[in-house]
Amino acid sequence: MKVRELGEFGLIEMLTRIVDDSGVGCQSSPELIIGIGDDAAAWQGEDSIQLGTTDILVQNMHFTLETTTWHDLGWKALAANISDIAAMGGIPTYAMISLGLPSDAEVERVSELYGGMAEIAHQFNLAIVGGDITESPLLIISPSVIGRVEKDRMLTRSGAVPGDRIAVSGYLGTSAAGLRMLKEKLKFNPEIASVFREAHRRPYPRITEGQILAEHGVKAAIDISDGLIADLAHICEASKVEARVHLPNIPIHPAVKAAFGEEALRLALSGGEDYELLFTAPVGARCDVPLPTTSMTIIGEIVECKPGKVTLLDENGKEIEWEKGGWEHFSRGTVHRAPTGNYIDVV
Amino acid sequence: MKVRELGEFGLIEMLTRIVDDSGVGCQSSPELIIGIGDDAAAWQGEDSIQLGTTDILVQNMHFTLETTTWHDLGWKALAANISDIAAMGGIPTYAMISLGLPSDAEVERVSELYGGMAEIAHQFNLAIVGGDITESPLLIISPSVIGRVEKDRMLTRSGAVPGDRIAVSGYLGTSAAGLRMLKEKLKFNPEIASVFREAHRRPYPRITEGQILAEHGVKAAIDISDGLIADLAHICEASKVEARVHLPNIPIHPAVKAAFGEEALRLALSGGEDYELLFTAPVGARCDVPLPTTSMTIIGEIVECKPGKVTLLDENGKEIEWEKGGWEHFSRGTVHRAPTGNYIDVV
Repeated sequence: MKVRELGEFGLIEMLTRIVDDSGVGCQSSPELIIGIGDDAAAWQGEDSIQLGTTDILVQNMHFTLETTTWHDLGWKALAANISDIAAMGGIPTYAMISLGLPSDAEVERVSELYGGMAEIAHQFNLAIVGGDITESPLLIISPSVIGRVEKDRMLTRSGAVPGDRIAVSGYLGTSAAGLRMLKEKLKFNPEIASVFREAHRRPYPRITEGQILAEHGVKAAIDISDGLIADLAHICEASKVEARVHLPNIPIHPAVKAAFGEEALRLALSGGEDYELLFTAPVGARCDVPLPTTSMTIIGEIVECKPGKVTLLDENGKEIEWEKGGWEHFSRGTVHRAPTGNYIDVV
Repeated sequence: MKVRELGEFGLIEMLTRIVDDSGVGCQSSPELIIGIGDDAAAWQGEDSIQLGTTDILVQNMHFTLETTTWHDLGWKALAANISDIAAMGGIPTYAMISLGLPSDAEVERVSELYGGMAEIAHQFNLAIVGGDITESPLLIISPSVIGRVEKDRMLTRSGAVPGDRIAVSGYLGTSAAGLRMLKEKLKFNPEIASVFREAHRRPYPRITEGQILAEHGVKAAIDISDGLIADLAHICEASKVEARVHLPNIPIHPAVKAAFGEEALRLALSGGEDYELLFTAPVGARCDVPLPTTSMTIIGEIVECKPGKVTLLDENGKEIEWEKGGWEHFSRGTVHRAPTGNYIDVV
């Protein structure tokens, strides 16, 4: 069987089994709290819980240099990893950066790339402590980020329980709108163009928000990288619950609605790369807590009926059929993470 | 300027400067003990010192699938990272594995790759706790390994002082001999072929040895990945000392001598990928301590004359001229880590 036939999630399942069968998974280390399968791994440090995550970016798979700058690429590569720490309710502490660079790349560009990483590291008080550089025919960026979270404050994918309300930070679909604009060279007024471009190129990890939510009793979260529906499905599978989402409640930036009309909802549901937090708040928890740099919107609730299922409801509370969507590597044979082909079909 | 003109070490210098100038290096975190520039980063944990390292492997740069199996490739990718922890005197604790996979790769092969990683993880009691999988035109393996070391037991590149003796574990050049055999399809008797092949494909990180050496007062170490001379130069630069190496003392496996004759010394000096420990022992320390799974050989001494210099001496104590050797990415424009072209010229 080829990798593209099994798909990303099938592969992850297989590799998890190999790790477990070889005794090098959770059973191998009494301090290991979370192994493969959440936004980050978690192990008991001597005092707080330590977190570790890694996300690799490959040229022409995750990005092209036509739609971003080297500086913003550096920002985003590290942002994607910091966002995984945010989704655990943690703060990032140390980063290691492995780079694969074409030998004819301009040193000045590499300097800009690292400048973008240094900029976001500085914002989040994250130290860049090492890494590796190698020659490669394609640009490869493979950061690892270590973080920490206080005991009893960790957010996981498996923490959702029936009765929880489902909420998201910020707006969804703006990053996908930005990619569309950049790829198709769509024209907007400068202010709107800037909102779209920033959302796509310079996502802002919700570190502060993750901690505030954890303080207020939130237990389950994930960051939206693959798309709302795909990432909510990850929570539902890990927590063995069903999610019911009210489509009219999905927060979409007015400019995205204005620019993309009916398509805006599809961008919001499965465009991905928003790096907002998707979380569930228990009944007792205040999930309308004000967040410092972004809004928060309740979009649905957790029920126990069909474990792993995400149900979409229209403005009349009527269930809407949809195909499984969001980004999954290998399964589509596309050569670039393009919005086209990754959308679910809601109508 | 192109990346290949600046070279790997020039790039590392530049990136270190960017990190430091942005305030996200050692000055940003009071707990950070060692940032960029050693075998691993080190930061103060709540009790012991935490270590972090990452080494990326790119197909046709670090390996070809013609000279190894997927299983052994998995072993070696993780071995290279574990070896960096050994060079700090530490033990590995957690690993995260990022993979870039061609979509037409066979799932069975990916399973073997992970099997090789699980095998070595099991041997070193290392938990595989997460990672990332992505589509990529080339096979990419990017592991990160976390470890720990007790306070006052850490080995660094900067710990060498004049008067120290220089020593290495095991034999040098056997991995390069193995690569030559596999690439050029050289024929040897099965026992010798197995020694060469194992050395190249399945290097055994010197974790136990690193700890024993630290217990016996050794302060400076590096693992031999780029080659003896290149790696010893890293110690000399970091410690601001000169190394004097007695060539007749270099430990070379009898089979390598028999098979490669005069060339054996060049394989040992700059073949690289032996993943043995190169260390310096202070006068008071016993550097002839017996190691559990390998031999140890004193090959020279540290002096203070010319900081950063590695001086090679022949059997009469006469200095031998040599060109800077060992593996450096970008600078040679080769497309594969081939022994040819990476040797220093000792005659």
